[in-house]
Amino acid sequence: MDNRPIGIFDSGVGGLTVMREVIEQLPYENIVYLGDTARIPYGSKSDQTIRKYAIQCSTFLKSKNVKTIVIACNTASSIALEHVRQSFDIPVIGVIDPGARSAATATENGKIGVIGTTATINSNAYQSKIMEYLHDAEVIGIPCPLFVPIVEEGWEYSNVARLTAEKYLDELVEHDVDTLVLGCTHYPILRYTIRKVIGHGVRLINPAYETARDLKKLLTNKNILNENYEKPKYEYYASDAPERLRRIGGNFLKKEIDNLYEIEIDNL
Amino acid sequence: MDNRPIGIFDSGVGGLTVMREVIEQLPYENIVYLGDTARIPYGSKSDQTIRKYAIQCSTFLKSKNVKTIVIACNTASSIALEHVRQSFDIPVIGVIDPGARSAATATENGKIGVIGTTATINSNAYQSKIMEYLHDAEVIGIPCPLFVPIVEEGWEYSNVARLTAEKYLDELVEHDVDTLVLGCTHYPILRYTIRKVIGHGVRLINPAYETARDLKKLLTNKNILNENYEKPKYEYYASDAPERLRRIGGNFLKKEIDNLYEIEIDNL
Repeated sequence: MDNRPIGIFDSGVGGLTVMREVIEQLPYENIVYLGDTARIPYGSKSDQTIRKYAIQCSTFLKSKNVKTIVIACNTASSIALEHVRQSFDIPVIGVIDPGARSAATATENGKIGVIGTTATINSNAYQSKIMEYLHDAEVIGIPCPLFVPIVEEGWEYSNVARLTAEKYLDELVEHDVDTLVLGCTHYPILRYTIRKVIGHGVRLINPAYETARDLKKLLTNKNILNENYEKPKYEYYASDAPERLRRIGGNFLKKEIDNLYEIEIDNL
Repeated sequence: MDNRPIGIFDSGVGGLTVMREVIEQLPYENIVYLGDTARIPYGSKSDQTIRKYAIQCSTFLKSKNVKTIVIACNTASSIALEHVRQSFDIPVIGVIDPGARSAATATENGKIGVIGTTATINSNAYQSKIMEYLHDAEVIGIPCPLFVPIVEEGWEYSNVARLTAEKYLDELVEHDVDTLVLGCTHYPILRYTIRKVIGHGVRLINPAYETARDLKKLLTNKNILNENYEKPKYEYYASDAPERLRRIGGNFLKKEIDNLYEIEIDNL
């Protein structure tokens, strides 16, 4: 048993959907969340820069005495996971592998859609990881750049959201995919609208959920679950504009964000 | 007479709407355009960083022997204009002042709307500049974060664009503004949709157009117009992903983008 917190970082507020799933599945764990809001978006940065940022975020979390690190950011997961693993002596998991493995297992016709930011789709991270698990999968990636601002505006149930989803998902419906990976931390919030447009026959894979499942297995196998069954402690850190994280983040986490602090990250 | 080129820089492709107006009003001028696409968006960076970037962009343009510099980026115009002016011995103009002055002149009821990115609206740059020209103006700033991705998707005539504009502009219609500043370089492309939603009685101020007018006056007054009436030469530089600039930029410039080069900007 180990009551040290779980560390989660993302380039912004999106990773709070991962935290939400972790809370759901591991309700007694303490959690430290870091949103690197000063340097968002990671997607347009070079690999070298993204690795540096991921190491800095992990160094900060390590200073908070975390027992494991969850990279909740799709870009950092695809570019920097191995790098972070090699640099720290605690377990590290990302969101790409759990999401890809789950999609490869779920599909029946081998046709899988992946939606994400332009950076994530262009990186091919989900597509190639899915094909590691299912060699003859047909994977169609669609960048959906309007989805993040729609979610951040709180417009997830609006006609704008529905019409936008129709424009983006049309091609996936035509290709008859039976599985769709929500390859961006913001997208689970649009789940209802995406479901309506893509139809009820398509399985939606939420990598946040799959990652929380993997994390639970990992803590169980390593015997480092927190067995102190009291109200857990949550701490939040942002490298810029903490008030924005508080305001927008509540919708992601479905709970109030207290214990929120601003930190300097550049010199870690 | 002076046949050296005009230098224009922006954090990305948006400044091409300014270049378009410059071409329209100064059809014989040679132009060097720089999109600092590696470091977009500027809006979320600190003032110090934005000033550094603006100096680097201007240093690059100066190395191309420009006779004047146009800061086409709203963020850099509001934060770094004076700084760039003090660092170079050629005239420098930004987009905020021409747009604000024109709005202050155009309004009759003193009620002016300004739309822009969240960063531009929160910076209060247009709002405070307008009030320098018209002390008792009532200025209402509305951030419209979906407009940039809508334009970059090429969806400016879509129902998504119309519904989004309705959501954003509703408050301005209610407040009975008679003048609206398109305070983001992307927005002139949405002009048709914005016009439809805001109504024909409202004057739309396009700072790109006003800036090109100011530039023409400046070159005329200083007697440095190019009087070589041949086909002018346009050169384009991007600090990252030049192909994206070419692909998206055509829609902004309404002409093909040739003579496009990628440059390293960090070490200038």
